[in-house]
Amino acid sequence: MPNSKITFLPHNVSLEVPPGTSVIQAALDAGVHINASCGGEGVCGKCRVRIEAGSLEGGVSEKLSAEDVHSGYRLACQSAVTADVTVRIPVESAIDAGVLNRPASPRRTARIQEFNFDELKERGLFLAPVEKKYLEIPPPSLQDNLPDLTRLIGFLTLQHDEHRLEADLGVIRKTPEVLRQDDFRVTATLVRPVREDGKTRIINLQPGDTSGRSCAVAMDIGTTTVYGQVIDLITGAVRAEHAEFNGQISYGEDVITRIVYAEKPGGLDRIQEVVIGTINKILRKIIRRSGVDPEDISTITLAGNTTMTQLLLKINPRCIRRAPYVPAASIYPPIKARDLGMELGDHVTALVYPCVSSYVGGDIVAGVMGSGIYRSEELTLFLDVGTNAEIVIGNKDWLACAACSAGPAFEGGGLKFGMRAAKGAIEDFSLDPGTLEPMIVTIGKVRPKGICGSGLINMVAVMFEMGVIDNLGKFDPGLKTPRIRKTDGGREFVVAWKAETQIDRDISISEIDIENLIRAKGAIYSGCMTLLTEVGLGVGDIQRIILAGGFGSFVDLAKAMTIGLLPEMDPDKVIYLGNGSLLGAKMSSLTNRIRRDVAAVVRKMTNFELSDTASYMDNYIAALFLPHTDINRFPRLKARVEARRQAV
Amino acid sequence: MPNSKITFLPHNVSLEVPPGTSVIQAALDAGVHINASCGGEGVCGKCRVRIEAGSLEGGVSEKLSAEDVHSGYRLACQSAVTADVTVRIPVESAIDAGVLNRPASPRRTARIQEFNFDELKERGLFLAPVEKKYLEIPPPSLQDNLPDLTRLIGFLTLQHDEHRLEADLGVIRKTPEVLRQDDFRVTATLVRPVREDGKTRIINLQPGDTSGRSCAVAMDIGTTTVYGQVIDLITGAVRAEHAEFNGQISYGEDVITRIVYAEKPGGLDRIQEVVIGTINKILRKIIRRSGVDPEDISTITLAGNTTMTQLLLKINPRCIRRAPYVPAASIYPPIKARDLGMELGDHVTALVYPCVSSYVGGDIVAGVMGSGIYRSEELTLFLDVGTNAEIVIGNKDWLACAACSAGPAFEGGGLKFGMRAAKGAIEDFSLDPGTLEPMIVTIGKVRPKGICGSGLINMVAVMFEMGVIDNLGKFDPGLKTPRIRKTDGGREFVVAWKAETQIDRDISISEIDIENLIRAKGAIYSGCMTLLTEVGLGVGDIQRIILAGGFGSFVDLAKAMTIGLLPEMDPDKVIYLGNGSLLGAKMSSLTNRIRRDVAAVVRKMTNFELSDTASYMDNYIAALFLPHTDINRFPRLKARVEARRQAV
Repeated sequence: MPNSKITFLPHNVSLEVPPGTSVIQAALDAGVHINASCGGEGVCGKCRVRIEAGSLEGGVSEKLSAEDVHSGYRLACQSAVTADVTVRIPVESAIDAGVLNRPASPRRTARIQEFNFDELKERGLFLAPVEKKYLEIPPPSLQDNLPDLTRLIGFLTLQHDEHRLEADLGVIRKTPEVLRQDDFRVTATLVRPVREDGKTRIINLQPGDTSGRSCAVAMDIGTTTVYGQVIDLITGAVRAEHAEFNGQISYGEDVITRIVYAEKPGGLDRIQEVVIGTINKILRKIIRRSGVDPEDISTITLAGNTTMTQLLLKINPRCIRRAPYVPAASIYPPIKARDLGMELGDHVTALVYPCVSSYVGGDIVAGVMGSGIYRSEELTLFLDVGTNAEIVIGNKDWLACAACSAGPAFEGGGLKFGMRAAKGAIEDFSLDPGTLEPMIVTIGKVRPKGICGSGLINMVAVMFEMGVIDNLGKFDPGLKTPRIRKTDGGREFVVAWKAETQIDRDISISEIDIENLIRAKGAIYSGCMTLLTEVGLGVGDIQRIILAGGFGSFVDLAKAMTIGLLPEMDPDKVIYLGNGSLLGAKMSSLTNRIRRDVAAVVRKMTNFELSDTASYMDNYIAALFLPHTDINRFPRLKARVEARRQAV
Repeated sequence: MPNSKITFLPHNVSLEVPPGTSVIQAALDAGVHINASCGGEGVCGKCRVRIEAGSLEGGVSEKLSAEDVHSGYRLACQSAVTADVTVRIPVESAIDAGVLNRPASPRRTARIQEFNFDELKERGLFLAPVEKKYLEIPPPSLQDNLPDLTRLIGFLTLQHDEHRLEADLGVIRKTPEVLRQDDFRVTATLVRPVREDGKTRIINLQPGDTSGRSCAVAMDIGTTTVYGQVIDLITGAVRAEHAEFNGQISYGEDVITRIVYAEKPGGLDRIQEVVIGTINKILRKIIRRSGVDPEDISTITLAGNTTMTQLLLKINPRCIRRAPYVPAASIYPPIKARDLGMELGDHVTALVYPCVSSYVGGDIVAGVMGSGIYRSEELTLFLDVGTNAEIVIGNKDWLACAACSAGPAFEGGGLKFGMRAAKGAIEDFSLDPGTLEPMIVTIGKVRPKGICGSGLINMVAVMFEMGVIDNLGKFDPGLKTPRIRKTDGGREFVVAWKAETQIDRDISISEIDIENLIRAKGAIYSGCMTLLTEVGLGVGDIQRIILAGGFGSFVDLAKAMTIGLLPEMDPDKVIYLGNGSLLGAKMSSLTNRIRRDVAAVVRKMTNFELSDTASYMDNYIAALFLPHTDINRFPRLKARVEARRQAV
């Protein structure tokens, strides 16, 4: 279905939206304010709009009289755009038109980097890591009774020009039987060497012709969630995917508590078994769903942070959590999947992404490989934000990286009314600059239960830009609104009144909450600045930003730049990678080019321990402002703020 | 102690013997006959000799009167040479002097090839497969917190100029702990690549300096017996060795019955466990005896015939025993010793010698590598004789090989009174050409119980050379002696009368026994001839013979040439290798040169299936004579036979 055009009056702002978009969401995207504080459930009845041309779906409510409905009034939060429509926002629902008379800055998240297997091939980046070869071999005789494997290898050379072959013991064990199962018609699975001068390994032998079926598994072992995919090595398609919470969550929510558990007697064995249990659960699901014969799965590639990786490989992680934070290894050898306990064929080798340091792990390396920064001319800032944020800056010539503890603010943690991005979380927000009445949107369009990370960023950005809070995050005591009130710990702003919530309490955002966010964004921004400082560059040198992890998918780029979380730049230059760890694992399954390059990339990635880097504290203190102690670094924001001051 | 000289009168034949040699053995070695048919237990009392000068130890017996003893008479079988001595053989104990008046041909077994580690080094054949490097590493700090393994590798490069290193997962797992155990003073065990362009593997890490301690295990997995050695990789010395019967004997004496068992459900698993049980029993003994810390054992190398190898590696051997006799593989990859069930460190890799064909196995390849034929200019015949005989002919340019079934005759099997070379087995023999009374020597110098393989060869050789049997192995019916008698199956010769034996029966050798031996030696000789025929050479081209296996240690070379088992050549050109399989395993433990060369050698070894080679049957039929249908191939024997005929 094509997009529909919605025009808001009296602002005369139009935008195209996908059919089914709620009017309140469209208003938010258009930068048009409609009073709405119930999150979209239609409880408050404040968000009335009037249809002037075209039509809307829904929006009729007991909050509207029959006469209102007849006159074209609808509740914006309850009505959906299904065709071109023009709506007028009545005075009681609208903001001061004067203030709004600025160019619309539609809500923009980063565009997604698309993965294209054919393009990969075209660009010469495709080096098949696994190939299957079908053979019809003449049976042996007394005149020609070479050992079975010698015969097999001979005909791989003769019929497929294969050289430098070697076979695993598992293949030798099955060769006599498999050769004779279908009259010496067999398919050999070959694993290509990573280095050009290496040997090609025969890892499996199947009766008959199975050369059209070849798959791999890619997995991201996250601290919270484990994602798995079955990849078709012939088409590059994802045949099935599934995610499960990492079973280790019962042993602690973060890496530190997991390490503490692993240090107990028997703890490491136990916690390794648990993640293998999660992996096997996913394997069973994705193998069943994809309909793939497990014999046709030849490799598994896994990426995870350093702690997840060491736990997966049963490597004691105790030195990770103690200064000077030393991981056991950077590069791990290929390991038989079965030896780790994975329910995969005996022939399957597990490849585990290398890590850089204790807090820049294989997930980040996978993201760097998957995003292709390491081959890029452009100076790129790669950011994976969660409880910990990992930062990589560089291009094909150099890469600097660091990790910083952002705290849980971006995941809605540590706030008075914080919550994960689940149903009922306030994720979007705007304010009527005149009345300071909010418009909020919750996930699932239900009455609010709390505030998630993106909601917090949006609130702080909006309040800062409207002057509700100052650059220290403090509320303007001169503002007249019942929503701002004093508490023991400073002022707070009531986002939703008790009656409009699901929790039977006012939902508010306090100066302490804002301070938490400023600290979190300050840690990340100053991490980036420190890496730049250390390599003698400035923020203006960054040509591109790549966001990885769940955070990147929902963050409003303009708002993130407003609070100083991201350096200010053209949103077109910001790319969302999705799950970079999973993408890297997938790409490594598809091409040996990644495996060949990764060791050199890891060596190239210079790790900075921020706590031990002289410039970090200076950068951090300078970043504990909205957006920064030096607003000149954010010229567009500065211009907007100045324009607003003049307008007021 | 120096050798002593014994002189026999009236023949005036002298030879030097090691102190403690029995007079009867010395007589045999000197080619002097003394009547003696009780095997050396002193029962028959016939072997009287008289001391004419010097002295003997022992030899006084109730079979001698006090007067006899006083006159210097002793029983030859009971007395030992401990100093220079001259003895006279009285007429009743001696043979016809005229006949004996030929040049003495002392009993000669092949000289042993000595293994010299220093020579190996001097000849540039030494490429250490395992080396230990001691390191003192500065501990990490926040400014320098590289992963532990990266640090370790960095300092191996810095302090020991090591490059292209990689580490096993087992090493990564222990690195954090071991590094911190003795304040970052550690010893790394490095395994060198077989190919020059390969990587060096770090397989172990130990706290402190253990660089002076480095060992390997070498094993020969024989069908009957398993031999093991602990080798000191620094000095080349054998630190301990031990042999056990292969526990698989309970599942069949030969490879065929073992294969039949392995084909039963669960049979392969069971029979593999059994040989691993034997290996572990030996490992425990040799490790304890050598006093070596198991952590200091870095590799194990094993060699065995093709069936033993496939059973060890749990590879179904069913195709080995069925035409066209195809083994699963020639070259086996390195395998973790623990994965096979061996009680060795987790870091130990098992290397298994490659095989050529179903019946020319890793034991023979090990012998070829250990003896150095593959580097030799001389055209060499390599022979390993047991129930099966394996033959290799060639030099550094080419190698041809074959296996033939010799039957059990050389191991004393299939004879009416055959037995293994154990206590009471007749192993040496001569005849009084006048009276045809025998002189026999048994193993352990006890009354005879039967005849072992070397005894049989000696008997047939002596009887043929004396004309007691003809070139078909038939007894001369004209000879007058009660020892030759007719039975249902032809004639037989009584070697020991009932009263002189331990078994209360006459021990005899029959024409059927002789026919068995002729078939066995004919199979081997014709095997050699066939290989020579196939490569366009003749027996005269052979410049050297190498004997491997237990057989080679005791066979009287002159006698083996007399019956046509070995081609006639200067005994100095015959070398006894000992256990070639064990020697090859040992050498492979000591130098990578062997491992580097072995794949090419195996490819070079052209296997001939004798049953399918046209010239074999002709060669075989021609060899079913003593020594051969064409005695001109044995010119020295021909000369002796003609001299004897003229003398008679």
